[in-house]
Amino acid sequence: MLPFARVTIIGLGLIGSSIARAVKAHMPSVRVTGHDADPGVRAAATALGFCDDVTDTPGAAVTDADFVILCVPVGAMRAAADSIALDLPIDAVVSDVGSSKGTVLAALQAALPGVAVIPAHPVAGTERSGPEAGFATLFHGRWCILTPPEDAAEATVERVAEFWRRLGAEVETMAPDHHDRVLAITSHLPHLIAYTIVGTASDMEEVTRSEVIKYSAGGFRDFTRIAASDPTMWRDVFLSNKDAVLDMLQRFSEDLTALQRAIRWGKGDELFDLFTRTRAVRRSIIEQGQDDAAPDFGRTHD
Amino acid sequence: MLPFARVTIIGLGLIGSSIARAVKAHMPSVRVTGHDADPGVRAAATALGFCDDVTDTPGAAVTDADFVILCVPVGAMRAAADSIALDLPIDAVVSDVGSSKGTVLAALQAALPGVAVIPAHPVAGTERSGPEAGFATLFHGRWCILTPPEDAAEATVERVAEFWRRLGAEVETMAPDHHDRVLAITSHLPHLIAYTIVGTASDMEEVTRSEVIKYSAGGFRDFTRIAASDPTMWRDVFLSNKDAVLDMLQRFSEDLTALQRAIRWGKGDELFDLFTRTRAVRRSIIEQGQDDAAPDFGRTHD
Repeated sequence: MLPFARVTIIGLGLIGSSIARAVKAHMPSVRVTGHDADPGVRAAATALGFCDDVTDTPGAAVTDADFVILCVPVGAMRAAADSIALDLPIDAVVSDVGSSKGTVLAALQAALPGVAVIPAHPVAGTERSGPEAGFATLFHGRWCILTPPEDAAEATVERVAEFWRRLGAEVETMAPDHHDRVLAITSHLPHLIAYTIVGTASDMEEVTRSEVIKYSAGGFRDFTRIAASDPTMWRDVFLSNKDAVLDMLQRFSEDLTALQRAIRWGKGDELFDLFTRTRAVRRSIIEQGQDDAAPDFGRTHD
Repeated sequence: MLPFARVTIIGLGLIGSSIARAVKAHMPSVRVTGHDADPGVRAAATALGFCDDVTDTPGAAVTDADFVILCVPVGAMRAAADSIALDLPIDAVVSDVGSSKGTVLAALQAALPGVAVIPAHPVAGTERSGPEAGFATLFHGRWCILTPPEDAAEATVERVAEFWRRLGAEVETMAPDHHDRVLAITSHLPHLIAYTIVGTASDMEEVTRSEVIKYSAGGFRDFTRIAASDPTMWRDVFLSNKDAVLDMLQRFSEDLTALQRAIRWGKGDELFDLFTRTRAVRRSIIEQGQDDAAPDFGRTHD
């Protein structure tokens, strides 16, 4: 049995448009309705055809829905939820795809009292943004984390879980605050550091921008990918998951200071020990299918 | 005309074995002799067949050479140069592939007085190590930086430049100390930060190792690739380019502190401005062919 028959997606960027495409690919009988606040995105979505219907207002998109997924930056979740509240069928399930979950759960519950809210976070994406960037296989083999409120009905959580499994994802459930700490270290801090180093490199005086670009294959280019991610999305993530991000950043800074000291005092053994330990983490990620086994991310070398 | 007829490679790991394979592919009439201090690597190199000859001693590898390339960790450069000094033909040109150049140039000149030493740094590699990891196209479209001493003969520099162009690289010449500052920001600092964050994530108490692995597609996995690079090579890089690395690290830490403050005080505009600026750097890298244009590094999504 299909978990839902009429899915509405609010926000048709990379993630929203990927969900729409994935539903078409994996559950072709499900009707997909979409809305985006940006008229240009609505026009692109209509032209690309990944929704059965693109509506001009958020309310019109949800009147007939049994599952509504908010795919907007986390700072816009409350407004998106407010905009559908009056037209939402009472038995519709509402979810989202935000990268932080504590503040989002609170915002959705405040805007939609009495509605079954089951927040979700598919841990997948690319550095691209917009409706053109989405693709149906984005969630294959990736994890989707559900953070239901404590009083959520088990059957409703299971319907949302089944929806994500149908899109090719593996599903895990955890408390919102634990999610926010796990993702602070596996996603938010990496993005923050990538943005920082790309900024630092851009601001050098005696090393030109052109030199930074030319010799980026020495390692720097790996950081530029995630530092090219959507600025609005990431601004909102850091502001909405402030406490966990600041805590992880503090730990990182302490570890960086220790390494700085090891370099200054020529403690080669300390460096070697850490560099050996970190190799094993990469091996585990590849063994568990969370990255390409091919060297250099499988980049082409012709 | 071929720049060299008899090339000797000391150190048959990722870079050395890639050079050997690339010479076979692009200059098949050139004779390639190899040596590695590790008998297991010599046996593997013999079995893989990318050298015409693999010798048991470094001296035997160079007796007939007109070009010798030292492909060992930068901390082992002096010993490698010492080991060939007695058997080196007087007119042979000596080069290397080390990631730092100031200390390496000094070490090679001290070990090989009167010899034409033209240090080089091909800015290319993968996270793999060893003779099995090399491939002939590794240097295609990558930059190779030459850092000749001030009194180097122009014709000799040009022969080494032509050698690298034949392997598919683009060649640039700069002073060793400028190289060391440029690479500190484009390569050494990125590696240091990647090693640090992978260590920080491994040491969390309340987030398990298994969670870090599972949700690594949120960004963390990008860092694990370069944190899987060869530990000996990288220990030596940081110790040999200490001053430039510590200076870049200081700049990075200042920028990170500014971002930390922006998050703590909710300054969304500052975050948004930086995140918009960093996007442009990625675009330039792709436009100049220094990374794949495909999203997500061209990783497969099936």
